[in-house]
Amino acid sequence: MKLTILGCHSATPRTNTNPTSQVLEIKNHMFLIDCGEGTQVELRRNKIKFSRIKHIFISHLHGDHYFGLVGLVSTFRLLTRETPLHIYGPKGLKEVITLQLKLSDSWTNYPLIFHELTSKKSELIYQDDNVEVHTIPLIHRIYTNGFLFKEKKNERKLDIAAVLRANINVAYYRKLKQGFDVENEEGVLIKNESVTKDPIPPKSYAFCSDTVYNEAIIPLIKNVSVLYHESTFIDKNEALCIPTKHSTARQAALIAKKANVGTLILGHFSTRYNGYDEFKSEAKEEFDNVLLAQDGKSFEF
Amino acid sequence: MKLTILGCHSATPRTNTNPTSQVLEIKNHMFLIDCGEGTQVELRRNKIKFSRIKHIFISHLHGDHYFGLVGLVSTFRLLTRETPLHIYGPKGLKEVITLQLKLSDSWTNYPLIFHELTSKKSELIYQDDNVEVHTIPLIHRIYTNGFLFKEKKNERKLDIAAVLRANINVAYYRKLKQGFDVENEEGVLIKNESVTKDPIPPKSYAFCSDTVYNEAIIPLIKNVSVLYHESTFIDKNEALCIPTKHSTARQAALIAKKANVGTLILGHFSTRYNGYDEFKSEAKEEFDNVLLAQDGKSFEF
Repeated sequence: MKLTILGCHSATPRTNTNPTSQVLEIKNHMFLIDCGEGTQVELRRNKIKFSRIKHIFISHLHGDHYFGLVGLVSTFRLLTRETPLHIYGPKGLKEVITLQLKLSDSWTNYPLIFHELTSKKSELIYQDDNVEVHTIPLIHRIYTNGFLFKEKKNERKLDIAAVLRANINVAYYRKLKQGFDVENEEGVLIKNESVTKDPIPPKSYAFCSDTVYNEAIIPLIKNVSVLYHESTFIDKNEALCIPTKHSTARQAALIAKKANVGTLILGHFSTRYNGYDEFKSEAKEEFDNVLLAQDGKSFEF
Repeated sequence: MKLTILGCHSATPRTNTNPTSQVLEIKNHMFLIDCGEGTQVELRRNKIKFSRIKHIFISHLHGDHYFGLVGLVSTFRLLTRETPLHIYGPKGLKEVITLQLKLSDSWTNYPLIFHELTSKKSELIYQDDNVEVHTIPLIHRIYTNGFLFKEKKNERKLDIAAVLRANINVAYYRKLKQGFDVENEEGVLIKNESVTKDPIPPKSYAFCSDTVYNEAIIPLIKNVSVLYHESTFIDKNEALCIPTKHSTARQAALIAKKANVGTLILGHFSTRYNGYDEFKSEAKEEFDNVLLAQDGKSFEF
């Protein structure tokens, strides 16, 4: 599982800070999460192949989270894309994108499929054999969802030496990986656990931006491997959290602790700050395993 | 008159090329012309004060000419702008910008005034004491206007030595600048031409992008000081001009020659080319005074 931060700042794009966008590489998918202005340029800068993006998740309709989407959709057309593109986001997104395509008389030559979200409860919005994606309802100034990406249970791993010793036909290996007991060449039933090892535990990633401090999300993100939680402010500006419906670094860390996550990544920094040391130190007072997002940085888990 | 090119490339923004946007400084105005994705970042990079922009002119509703507008409008709000902003562009622009403001529940706290254009004839769309702006109807795949910016006639310049010799009261200097004859302290009528010099000739700038080769614009841009004319292609790709409704560098130069302009600036280069020498050399075969636009470059006239 690899996360590439294209932008992790709030509000307006500047020469040295990008608004929110990130790419999650998981089980051979490249999921694009949010798409602030300039995202397509950052995709190029980070050498992410446009053609690998098939699913885009938009948390909410504030500009710093989606103003780059219409440009990316248009660029896919210019690149003569044919692969369908699925976009998941709040109701209204389809209207605003299609209005702009209509005004430019430039319809896409690939299928553009909108999955508009309106529920205030967590929903399963995508799944295949390897991964599933759920919404995480957040509390912000407008309708907003985070997203939970979960690997499905991995297959058991063969203990090849034990399998050979047990004299099992190769035709049964697939069944062994799936956890079944099988008969060996002599017709003896072989217990699965005696020839396989536990699978790699499935990984999970929760993206929570933008949101006020909200303990209601804890059951949804319980025990995730990695949590990206917005931390627009530090303690000294905590008073801004309620009117703007944002969080401090400390609040993000409290959520991480209570949800027992593996790693917390802080992001969505207000551009009022020149450095980010205090985000980390204040969060670390509540939860130890804290990383700071940074535009252009990749994390592997 | 100073022109700063923020972006002069067609189609998609890339790490090293920006879509169309430029700032014309004329008679104390900062007119923003087109606003492709990333324009607000380029304004910062070029240290142009956002508060000085009061009029934005959008040629047409292809994304590479206006996808940065909604972000700029939103940033003005975050910067607590109060000054009115006037936007001139094709019908539809108001709907797409206001829809996005509505969806983000973020109305501007400054007056946002749209002047939607629908005429296929040249119109006077802005004027004050010093400058006027006219549309230049262009032929492109969708409804498109160029813009002609004209300084109004400048005042005559006082020949101070002559004025003093003629013993004219300082109260009459304003009238002299306006071209009137005045009486001197002895009551003798003094001919204006004997104590003033011709004014600096007014400058003018024509922005013509995007357009197919179209001689119908020549009467509108006749004798302008500076013409920016799109040149998406060079000769070898001329066949693309008709289907895409664009021009070659040579065609831009032919328009410049027939319109007897002072200087031609070529821009809106297709991103298929790695260098621009051929744009200049092919244009120079038709018209000598050719400059190449370049992202981040300023021209003073």
